[in-house]
Amino acid sequence: MDFNLMERLRQPAETKIVLLVMDGLGGLPGDAGGKTALEAAHTPALDALALKSICGLHEPLGPGVTPGSGPAHLALFGYNPLQYEVGRGVLAALGTGFDLQSGDVAARGNFGTVDGQGRVRDRRAGRIDTETAAKLCDKLREVKIEGVRIFVEPVKEYRFLLVLRGEGLDGDIADTDPQQVGVPPLAPEARVPEARNTADAVHRFVETARDRLAEDHPANTILLRGFSQRPQWPPMPETFGLRCAAIAGYPMYRGVSRLLGMTVLETGATLSEEIATLEKHWADHDFFYLHVKKIDSAGEDGDFESKVDLITEVDRYVPRLLDLQPDVLIVTGDHSTPAAMARHSWHPVPVLLHARDARPDRVDRFGERACMNGGLGPRFPASDLMALAMAHAGRLAKFGA
Amino acid sequence: MDFNLMERLRQPAETKIVLLVMDGLGGLPGDAGGKTALEAAHTPALDALALKSICGLHEPLGPGVTPGSGPAHLALFGYNPLQYEVGRGVLAALGTGFDLQSGDVAARGNFGTVDGQGRVRDRRAGRIDTETAAKLCDKLREVKIEGVRIFVEPVKEYRFLLVLRGEGLDGDIADTDPQQVGVPPLAPEARVPEARNTADAVHRFVETARDRLAEDHPANTILLRGFSQRPQWPPMPETFGLRCAAIAGYPMYRGVSRLLGMTVLETGATLSEEIATLEKHWADHDFFYLHVKKIDSAGEDGDFESKVDLITEVDRYVPRLLDLQPDVLIVTGDHSTPAAMARHSWHPVPVLLHARDARPDRVDRFGERACMNGGLGPRFPASDLMALAMAHAGRLAKFGA
Repeated sequence: MDFNLMERLRQPAETKIVLLVMDGLGGLPGDAGGKTALEAAHTPALDALALKSICGLHEPLGPGVTPGSGPAHLALFGYNPLQYEVGRGVLAALGTGFDLQSGDVAARGNFGTVDGQGRVRDRRAGRIDTETAAKLCDKLREVKIEGVRIFVEPVKEYRFLLVLRGEGLDGDIADTDPQQVGVPPLAPEARVPEARNTADAVHRFVETARDRLAEDHPANTILLRGFSQRPQWPPMPETFGLRCAAIAGYPMYRGVSRLLGMTVLETGATLSEEIATLEKHWADHDFFYLHVKKIDSAGEDGDFESKVDLITEVDRYVPRLLDLQPDVLIVTGDHSTPAAMARHSWHPVPVLLHARDARPDRVDRFGERACMNGGLGPRFPASDLMALAMAHAGRLAKFGA
Repeated sequence: MDFNLMERLRQPAETKIVLLVMDGLGGLPGDAGGKTALEAAHTPALDALALKSICGLHEPLGPGVTPGSGPAHLALFGYNPLQYEVGRGVLAALGTGFDLQSGDVAARGNFGTVDGQGRVRDRRAGRIDTETAAKLCDKLREVKIEGVRIFVEPVKEYRFLLVLRGEGLDGDIADTDPQQVGVPPLAPEARVPEARNTADAVHRFVETARDRLAEDHPANTILLRGFSQRPQWPPMPETFGLRCAAIAGYPMYRGVSRLLGMTVLETGATLSEEIATLEKHWADHDFFYLHVKKIDSAGEDGDFESKVDLITEVDRYVPRLLDLQPDVLIVTGDHSTPAAMARHSWHPVPVLLHARDARPDRVDRFGERACMNGGLGPRFPASDLMALAMAHAGRLAKFGA
């Protein structure tokens, strides 16, 4: 549903929506003809719920497209990920939990190696470890540029986050990472006149940083890309007329939620702690997004058995969720991460939507194959879910007389 | 998937995609409550494949729209047929196998009958036979127009193809066929100033042609329509980053493939010969389109039994296709041609997509009703197939981090 129509039809109600996202939920059979992790998991609570729910499988970004976690979540929240895109710098800030403010310019940095002629030898500085990089970040943090505040945060291995804060900054600056070896790093060029001052500041920072790192071979230079600023998107609370809360332990998901204007609740990262957070704040919000990360990690590790066990464990908490009597409960994933592929994939993701007025289908268990014959269809756009949640929560008025 | 996104996400891989198109595959039950031709056919190989594949039914042009073979194929190849449309003249050229070059102007011609006052009496010249028309085409071919080369090719019965070749031609010219009787043929008017010279050349050709045909009653005039030029479309090899080959015996399908920049391989027209061609060129291309025409012809003839037999025959060649170990094998039709209707129809077309990472569904045989419960869905856009093929071939990168 487009946001204009949503704005026109939304109406207040005293109802609660819970969206439980098992990251990377969807999968493939563990062996030929076998079951997927979700099918193999022991899920009596989800199966009983499926029997009373309408089910299906969503495609986060359309047929064949494998989504990153950020875009996949935007789709679940009803935002078209092709339209609402963030730069790499902002993504890096979200991933580290950096409190990116409006106007800040963020870039993703690599420590790299240059030779005596200043030509890039290694764009990843021999993949130095996170600890080494953290010390180099401390060094870079000492670089002072007039009129601009500089933040440098380690990310992982050779990667770091650079943030510039100041008046009138503009992120429309070209990458300094040449994306190849044997050539010098590029200058941080302004791509629009408004970004000239920012580009100058970046230039001064880079020059000073390189001087400071000169003796730190292999990490004797920095390469920057994805300069970007926090986007100004329509906030979820306004779009849907919902007081939205995010309950997620990992920085990336908290960051995306914050970008959408959700209240990000303090929480422990286990599902038990997340549900405790949910229970505690139940009265204060209308929409709760709960995120379970580890299932995706098991998939990425190619660990089918762990994925099965983690899904089985989630199932044990479902009764506690139901005790809260949410008006709408959606259980799904953001994308598929089949252990057989050990990475995100394009495969549609099982969904179950439970609500008093949900029309039951013939699906009697929660799994990929079962959901293919569900009433939501075997391949529907993830962005349909928020409209369906709103409708089942009695929060959408009739269109026309 | 739109082509901008495809361009952004496509990545190289050492994988092979085979698209086997049984023309007019979809059908209706031969009698009430009975089986369709595909369901009635003996297809042990396709049924075994369906069991391991993801299945569904595609709609070539959307709900209720009956496609011609050209548009239906464009949709299979990922090109929106409503956006990528060719004029009738170009279609006629494709159908006869004429090697239409960039800049040529093609028109579809009818031999017609005019009375003593020059008014159209019969727009089809009493449906003269192909042989008679071929002789008249020889006559027209003798017409010489300065600065322009003229080609005239018989098509079928009273229909022929006219092609003008020369410098600076423009196809934006109005039809001379008045589409009604009792009025004279229209002048070939330029619809834009750039087409004036071309319109003049057509005018001179038409005048001379009518003089030459004056005594050939009932074919004593010609009527032209659908002036058009070979379109400049994004070529498939660039769009998808695939070396594309077409293996098709019939001119129309070879022509459409050529328009899309595929390499059109020399081949015999039987499936056995087509597969031999596939085997021979296996190393040279990444994407192979194989076309089986006769099933559609049986449908158009209303010959249910022949359609059953022809599908049964195709099934026998499936093991030979599988021996090549394509990374992705899609088996489908371009549209439905139910023998019960004896013409193309809008009914969705069964699809089977086989690949290592295809998520199996519960479909255990290849047929219309079975595919309705497949994981691809009972009515999905045909243009999804290329995106899915690319994904399953490992040729699409992740969107976002």
